[in-house]
Amino acid sequence: MLPDKTSKLSVIPLGGTGEIGKNLLVFEYEDSIVVIDGGVKFPDDELLGIDLVIPDSSYLEKNRERIKGLFITHGHEDHIGGLPFILPKLNIPIYGTKLALGLVQAKFQERAAYPESLMHILEPGKPIQAGAFEVEAFRVTHSIPDAVGYSLHSPVGRVIYTGDFKVDYTPIDGQDMELGKLAAWGQEGVLALLCDSTNAERPGVTVSEMVVGKTLREWFERAEGKIIMASFASNIHRIQQAIDAAADIGRKVCVVGRSMENVVRTATELGYLKLRDESILVPSSEVANLPSEKLLVLTTGSQGEPLAALTRMATRTHRQINVLPGDMVIMAATPIPGNEKLVGKTINHLYQIGAEVVTKDMGQVHVSGHANQEEIKLVIRLTQPRFLIPHHGEIRHQVGFKRIGNSLGYTDQDIAITQLGSRVELSTDRMEFGEPVEAGSVYIDGLGIGDVGQIVLRDRQQLAQDGVVVVVAAISKAKPYRILSGPDIISRGFTFMKEAETLVDGAKAEVLNTLERQIQKDQMEWGVIKANIRDSLGKYLWDKTRRRPMILPVLLTH
Amino acid sequence: MLPDKTSKLSVIPLGGTGEIGKNLLVFEYEDSIVVIDGGVKFPDDELLGIDLVIPDSSYLEKNRERIKGLFITHGHEDHIGGLPFILPKLNIPIYGTKLALGLVQAKFQERAAYPESLMHILEPGKPIQAGAFEVEAFRVTHSIPDAVGYSLHSPVGRVIYTGDFKVDYTPIDGQDMELGKLAAWGQEGVLALLCDSTNAERPGVTVSEMVVGKTLREWFERAEGKIIMASFASNIHRIQQAIDAAADIGRKVCVVGRSMENVVRTATELGYLKLRDESILVPSSEVANLPSEKLLVLTTGSQGEPLAALTRMATRTHRQINVLPGDMVIMAATPIPGNEKLVGKTINHLYQIGAEVVTKDMGQVHVSGHANQEEIKLVIRLTQPRFLIPHHGEIRHQVGFKRIGNSLGYTDQDIAITQLGSRVELSTDRMEFGEPVEAGSVYIDGLGIGDVGQIVLRDRQQLAQDGVVVVVAAISKAKPYRILSGPDIISRGFTFMKEAETLVDGAKAEVLNTLERQIQKDQMEWGVIKANIRDSLGKYLWDKTRRRPMILPVLLTH
Repeated sequence: MLPDKTSKLSVIPLGGTGEIGKNLLVFEYEDSIVVIDGGVKFPDDELLGIDLVIPDSSYLEKNRERIKGLFITHGHEDHIGGLPFILPKLNIPIYGTKLALGLVQAKFQERAAYPESLMHILEPGKPIQAGAFEVEAFRVTHSIPDAVGYSLHSPVGRVIYTGDFKVDYTPIDGQDMELGKLAAWGQEGVLALLCDSTNAERPGVTVSEMVVGKTLREWFERAEGKIIMASFASNIHRIQQAIDAAADIGRKVCVVGRSMENVVRTATELGYLKLRDESILVPSSEVANLPSEKLLVLTTGSQGEPLAALTRMATRTHRQINVLPGDMVIMAATPIPGNEKLVGKTINHLYQIGAEVVTKDMGQVHVSGHANQEEIKLVIRLTQPRFLIPHHGEIRHQVGFKRIGNSLGYTDQDIAITQLGSRVELSTDRMEFGEPVEAGSVYIDGLGIGDVGQIVLRDRQQLAQDGVVVVVAAISKAKPYRILSGPDIISRGFTFMKEAETLVDGAKAEVLNTLERQIQKDQMEWGVIKANIRDSLGKYLWDKTRRRPMILPVLLTH
Repeated sequence: MLPDKTSKLSVIPLGGTGEIGKNLLVFEYEDSIVVIDGGVKFPDDELLGIDLVIPDSSYLEKNRERIKGLFITHGHEDHIGGLPFILPKLNIPIYGTKLALGLVQAKFQERAAYPESLMHILEPGKPIQAGAFEVEAFRVTHSIPDAVGYSLHSPVGRVIYTGDFKVDYTPIDGQDMELGKLAAWGQEGVLALLCDSTNAERPGVTVSEMVVGKTLREWFERAEGKIIMASFASNIHRIQQAIDAAADIGRKVCVVGRSMENVVRTATELGYLKLRDESILVPSSEVANLPSEKLLVLTTGSQGEPLAALTRMATRTHRQINVLPGDMVIMAATPIPGNEKLVGKTINHLYQIGAEVVTKDMGQVHVSGHANQEEIKLVIRLTQPRFLIPHHGEIRHQVGFKRIGNSLGYTDQDIAITQLGSRVELSTDRMEFGEPVEAGSVYIDGLGIGDVGQIVLRDRQQLAQDGVVVVVAAISKAKPYRILSGPDIISRGFTFMKEAETLVDGAKAEVLNTLERQIQKDQMEWGVIKANIRDSLGKYLWDKTRRRPMILPVLLTH
């Protein structure tokens, strides 16, 4: 296959660059588009009331006809959580390994349906022709089984995307990362490498998941009461190791929390989680009948999420599981940035009860699933790409990755730092930025997809800070103008009005004054009157309280 | 002085226990009360719109007559920031070292005034008689100069409170921690030790501030563009070391950010910050005229605070300081739990500009000011107290401290884990809990002290999540009832109404329906009607959107 000298291969990140979360990568060559992943991101604090954030996929919708398929790297939320929102509008074939696809299917059962006929299980090493692309998955090691990266072979050359990975030489399931395949492609020639850059700031190498298993066993053996282990639901290897350790010391296992129950069910059905004896699992309704020292509870809530099972146990509001003094709670996860305070609260509640709390600081009960600097270097050296594109990282991680590239001899021109919607154009010997495409974030709030935008969010922020003051009056529609009723003032989230009589009286007088001045002019421009009320009342309240509540004047006329 | 066998010494933490922040400790013996510190705490995320949190000091107000004095350990906000709110109600003498008192005075200049005649500079080693207590300060090392702990000698024995401390054997100002004095008191006999437990979970010892100076110099020498260093304003030793290093390599220093400017001014005036040559300082208005390589900017914003100087520089909204590609930004502080994400944002913005960002992970540009486990053990061994009371810590830190105590042979009964308002009663040979006193948090919002309570906060939380929907109608006051105007519906922070016409129409119909049903009954109970509107409209909106905005029905009658 001779490379076409005129057409270019475009790499377009619609999610997962300049941020951690909502991964969505687009590859485009002439009339062929291949998409990888479709994830969600959890909202930042300032996105008040927003449940989830998904990538803006309008570019895909506009180019639906050209999409040959969507390929999934692995079953984490930041890679598959957006699919129920994105896929129904596209109606395209999707491909993934057995577990990844199983978790996608479980997701679709919760929300919209998606035709089974469009879902295809894919196996590493068996390439799929998707338009101009030959797409081949290769196994990587990560914090969930059955994770893959992809090689996309196009007329201008081969591009490799690692997906999320670490180099774990002793994976729990014996499924090694296919380093040999990467090396072979490297020998043939690789045009560009898109690489996980999450841990590009961290020197050295990551620790194998196997080490966590050993540490867990040591803690388990020391425990005298119940053992409660909180981790990410999707970390099936860790769950496997915990269950095995429990079996060895004769403890039953109770799985608690919706996502943990779902993942354990799917993983067991598909054969990724192996129970020596199914009777080791006990339902939470039976926990009360078992002695503490015979029990391991696997639970959600490692991030201190207010409604998660561990949080409810810690605040003594969980219906079935009581944490008792002397119980051991193992936090087998690190707080995601932003969750530190919530996690800290949970830990304090547990100490208050008298439980022993084991965190990462006290021994390796958690390891990262993303490659550190030396692992990234290994993958670059094996694949020997002409160009580098860091993915899956905030700017700091992309810059960290660039420094790694520099240290291996790549110039700044050989490395593309992308933003959402960037179009990186690759020909056989050039990489440059083309015209960016429409990209960004879409907010999900309840049933609404995208209806909450910047205006609504700004209003929520103002309401959150200082509350709302509603001013109501009824005014005659025609001359002679007069106030028929009001002005009344109602507030919420501003101050405790019952104890602020003089403030309310002052505010009413202020509004009355504004209205009467307007009536004297004998000219009622309602927009102007409302603006005047907002101004004068706003000034009055700021003087008295140094707060800026949202002021909503409502004038009824008849 | 023979110990009185009947009266007890009470230790009452009104702040700073079970939490980090708003320290306020009370010691009571018969009709003598001695108070230590009066700090603030920054509000948790769920305290929407709250500016500051101070301790509930009503116990002190009720017992004002018995208070012999308030003693300050050091000038950090969590120890002195509450004084402008607490002291005016008490009108009692206060004592502190020169710098601590200087910072308190600067604080009072911003808010309420406090009589100079009640402020007394105190020197370590010179005891002050305060009622039944002989109070003596001893020097400790901490992340601010002039920090002290206190010995309180009472008829039942001596109690020692460390204040915030670390054991720094090479303090920048040469003012060693007075370990010898602690040892001497230990020989005489100490009844109880109240000890900083912030870092009780951390093994080993802390690193000396001197090491930071060395690291800063190394980075400074590597810098080619501007150097911008962000740190806590109060870390005068770090600022001193940075200025000295700048002087050595011929850079001018510009101090930016209100709190940084205030502290540098106060510390220079009082002689705690020493400039070899005053001309090294340049005002920010002159920065534009200086070459980048001749400049060090000392700034606030190490916590990513949205309005701080560094944050504004990073978002290119600072009027005087422009960050340029190649500038070096040193984050000489760790994020306080809860601030990680804000700090991360600032770092990403700086990388975006092309600056080099140096964080603690890349070298010791920050060290903790609080004692690790081995330092705590040292102080316990030196003072040999009969009883231990961990202070200045969340429950996890208090439990960590208890474990340290246990490892040194103290039983659980020898160690008191307190809560806010606990009364620990000490006699010569016993420690037990007495009746707790009124304690808690008071929220400051704008000019309001304590007017924002749980109801207002719950309303703000609801408003923040899903906004507000105001329903207005005018109805005739007397029979026959009829709707004179409306119903109108206005919303903010709920959805973008202009694009939600059917939703608005449906909501109006729902309200109209409710009103008409009520009118048909020919009986207008306004409370009932409003409740019905809230119910039916709430249900309608939940069905359509899965959101629960606050619904405010306003009915005007005339």
